[in-house]
Amino acid sequence: MSTEKRAVILVSGGLDSTTVLAMARAQGYACYTLSFDYGQRHRAELLAAERVSAVLGDVEHKVVKLNLDSIGGSALTDTDLAVPEEETEGIPITYVPARNTVFMSIALGWAEVLGAQDIFIGVNAVDYSGYPDCRPEYIAAFETMANLATRAGVEGQKLSIHTPLMDMGKGDIIAAGVALGVDYELTVSCYQADEDGRACGKCDSCRLRRQGFEDAEVRDPTRYF
Amino acid sequence: MSTEKRAVILVSGGLDSTTVLAMARAQGYACYTLSFDYGQRHRAELLAAERVSAVLGDVEHKVVKLNLDSIGGSALTDTDLAVPEEETEGIPITYVPARNTVFMSIALGWAEVLGAQDIFIGVNAVDYSGYPDCRPEYIAAFETMANLATRAGVEGQKLSIHTPLMDMGKGDIIAAGVALGVDYELTVSCYQADEDGRACGKCDSCRLRRQGFEDAEVRDPTRYF
Repeated sequence: MSTEKRAVILVSGGLDSTTVLAMARAQGYACYTLSFDYGQRHRAELLAAERVSAVLGDVEHKVVKLNLDSIGGSALTDTDLAVPEEETEGIPITYVPARNTVFMSIALGWAEVLGAQDIFIGVNAVDYSGYPDCRPEYIAAFETMANLATRAGVEGQKLSIHTPLMDMGKGDIIAAGVALGVDYELTVSCYQADEDGRACGKCDSCRLRRQGFEDAEVRDPTRYF
Repeated sequence: MSTEKRAVILVSGGLDSTTVLAMARAQGYACYTLSFDYGQRHRAELLAAERVSAVLGDVEHKVVKLNLDSIGGSALTDTDLAVPEEETEGIPITYVPARNTVFMSIALGWAEVLGAQDIFIGVNAVDYSGYPDCRPEYIAAFETMANLATRAGVEGQKLSIHTPLMDMGKGDIIAAGVALGVDYELTVSCYQADEDGRACGKCDSCRLRRQGFEDAEVRDPTRYF
């Protein structure tokens, strides 16, 4: 195995995960980026994930297909449910059951194959407080489980789950990314982006993003339809 | 949500998971069976999984496709690696990185959609001591993580991972299944079974299975090629 410091980075093509990728690169990691084709409505995400991975200098970008839409339960995968355009209380309908758990599990498998001891994910407890799998206590429990699940764990290597955005507001995330040279025009955050990656400007994700650029006092490069 | 007691059962079509399904049915669960099309060599497994689910009275059987072969690392998904036909030391080459973690994570998502609080998996620490993700401490850590990952966990419902075979030898598993009326001719265990579900008789899995029938003093119904 090479002596380079390898990491698996979960990259959705959105603003958060793109910032995380820039952070991991700045820390000297050889970055293996992982995206999922899971029946999400916003397929423009996958194109954006490929674009940002290339621009930010990944070693390899992999897209794993899995049909999470077959288990249903979220407005992001179930076409019978509407994406809400107003703020909602509690766990949002855009929450995909066990999504982060599934994604990090597959990242764990790839990390094991690569001999990587680090996984980066852009979860955030500030903006996504309604998602159970975006909380620090959940991430800590996943890390404990991961270290019992794998060959590396058995052999005494420590696998770490990095969540550098956990306690950051959207404005701080954008300011950090801009400082690292991230071009946010490459990214797509909208839950119902069109094929060209243009955003609705109305969904939860668009509202948070737009507010973030205002807070960071950075020009919003998002193309709206 | 109905008042029936629902459970998600991971069913591979092999001897162990089929026995687990029979056990869950005997405990009165409405069984939702889940299989994976993950690039495994032994596709006869998937046919067997469908067959045993139907015969043992599942409510619904779902097959989730995911291309784990793209991350490589195991003789079960990587066609460049040979399936060993002799006993090996340490973690076997047939170990698929993070497989149980990925499978249980998707089961967790489906359980959440179904309102099920119980997941059954046929892991076994006796015959699979070389697999890190077949140990009781791993299962306990997964359960802890799962209860932090989901809406149900946040709302105070307890999700349980059931591993009724954990401490059983293969002979005891077979004896328990026979007592519940399981017809093991329906099942496929061989790592390199042919399309008709006939077994090689030589791989680790075949050897364990054959010994199990001997130990249980039950006629071995396996069809070998």
